[in-house]
Amino acid sequence: MSKVLKIFKIGGGIIDDETQLRYFIGELARIEGRKILVHGGGKGANQMLARLGIEPQMVEGRRITDAATLDIVTMFYAGKTNKQIVAFLQAEGVNALGLSGADANAIQATKRPVRTIDYGYVGDLNEHSINSSLLEQLLEANITPVFCAITHDGHGQLLNTNADTIASTLARALAGSYAVELHFCFEKDGVLTDLNDETSVIPRITPGLYQTLKADGVIAAGMVPKLDNAFAALEAGVATVVIENALKINEPVKTILCRS
Amino acid sequence: MSKVLKIFKIGGGIIDDETQLRYFIGELARIEGRKILVHGGGKGANQMLARLGIEPQMVEGRRITDAATLDIVTMFYAGKTNKQIVAFLQAEGVNALGLSGADANAIQATKRPVRTIDYGYVGDLNEHSINSSLLEQLLEANITPVFCAITHDGHGQLLNTNADTIASTLARALAGSYAVELHFCFEKDGVLTDLNDETSVIPRITPGLYQTLKADGVIAAGMVPKLDNAFAALEAGVATVVIENALKINEPVKTILCRS
Repeated sequence: MSKVLKIFKIGGGIIDDETQLRYFIGELARIEGRKILVHGGGKGANQMLARLGIEPQMVEGRRITDAATLDIVTMFYAGKTNKQIVAFLQAEGVNALGLSGADANAIQATKRPVRTIDYGYVGDLNEHSINSSLLEQLLEANITPVFCAITHDGHGQLLNTNADTIASTLARALAGSYAVELHFCFEKDGVLTDLNDETSVIPRITPGLYQTLKADGVIAAGMVPKLDNAFAALEAGVATVVIENALKINEPVKTILCRS
Repeated sequence: MSKVLKIFKIGGGIIDDETQLRYFIGELARIEGRKILVHGGGKGANQMLARLGIEPQMVEGRRITDAATLDIVTMFYAGKTNKQIVAFLQAEGVNALGLSGADANAIQATKRPVRTIDYGYVGDLNEHSINSSLLEQLLEANITPVFCAITHDGHGQLLNTNADTIASTLARALAGSYAVELHFCFEKDGVLTDLNDETSVIPRITPGLYQTLKADGVIAAGMVPKLDNAFAALEAGVATVVIENALKINEPVKTILCRS
C-alpha cells in the first residue's frame, strides 16, 4: 500500500482572518502523516497596493503583475503570510518549513509568454517544475512544507504563480511516490447543487456524474475551471481530490472527486 | 582536520543596492564548500513604514518593534529581501534555502523581557536557540541556508532579531561540528586605524593587540561592541572572525581576528 500524502490548498478569506486561520491550523495539526500546505494571498497585498497608491494594472479583467506589484505580493505571500502560518504550525507541534519556489529550487517556473496580453511577472508551471526529490526528503524527515504562491525562473527572477496551480502541480508530481489526496479548501462545504443551500453538498462526484451535472447546468460556472483542473489531476494519477470548507477539514461534510 | 563552514553576515547599504547585492552574490557563489548567509534589513522597511505613516517608536534612541513594525519588517526581511537573495543565488548555481527562525524551528528565540524598556517584538537568543542538527543536515545536503533576521518564540509569535547576533550565535552553535569562519561584511575594507583612510586596515588582531588598540583609543567607538562580540565568539570556539568589505570578499584585504 502506498504512503499517503495530503496536500491542502487554502486561500482568500481565511488568510485575512487570524482567528479563522489559527483555527484551521489547529485542525490541520490534528491530521497525522505527510502533508503539504499551499496558501494563496489574502486581501492584504491589494490593500497595501492601494495604500501605497499603486494602481492595479488590469487587462481584459486580468490582473497584471508589474514589478511594483511583484514586490508587494512577495512581501505579503512569502513574508508576512508564509512566516505567520509557519510560526502558528510550529506552535501546534508541526515541523513546518516555509518555501517559495526559489527556496532549494523547489518549484521552477517559466515567465508566461506574451501572446495577446503581457501578464508581467507571472509564472507558469509544467511537469518538470517540481523538485520532487527535495520534497520527498523533507516529507520523510517529518517536515511539512508550506508553499506560498511565489516561484522563480532559475535566472534570478521571482514570479507570481497561481496557488491552485501550485497545489495541483505538486499533487501530480508526487503521485508517483505517494497516494496523494489533494484538498481544495474554501468557504463552502463542498460542491453545491444550490449555491444558496449549504446542505446541498454533493458527497461524491465521478467523471461520469461530473459530465452530467455540467451538461445539466447544476455546477456553478465559477466551479467549472476548478473541477476541470481537479479531474485532470485525477487522470494524471492523483488518488483523490477533496473540495471542502477550510474550517471543517476534520468533519465528514465535503465533496470527494474520484476516478470511478 | 575539521570540515570548514563559512558564515557570512551582510546588512545595510548593500541590500538597498541591487547591483551591489548581485555582485556580492556572484562573489559568494565563487566560494566553495559549506556556507550560510545571514542578512539584516536595508532601508526599505523604514521607507515603507514612513510611506504608510507608521511613526517609528523610539525609546532612549532604540527602535521599538510594535505589531505594525513587526509586520512590515517581516514582509521586507523574510519576503522581499530573503527571496530575492535566494533567487539570485539559485541563478548562480548555489542551492540556497531561505529561512526565518520559525522555518523548521531553525532558531527559537525568547521575547526580550521588559525591564526599564519594552522593546516590543524583539527576540533574544541563547545557546539553545539554534537547531544545529537541522543546519548540519542542510549543509551536508549541499544546501546553503540564507537567514533573515526574523525568529519565533515557539508559541506562534514572530520576533525581530539582530542579524549580527544571529550570525554569531549560529557560529558558536556550529563550532562543535565545523571549523567556523565568521565573516562580518560591511562597507569598509576591515578594521581601520584611521576611519578616513581605507588603506589603514589592520590585517590581523589577536586578543592582546585588541586590548592595546582599545586602550589607546585606536578602535572607533562604533566598532567596539562588534569586536567584543567577535572575540567572545572566538573564545566560545569559533575558529576565525573576519571583518571585510562585502564587495571584496575574494580579495586579500580584510581584518582577521584570531585567538592567538
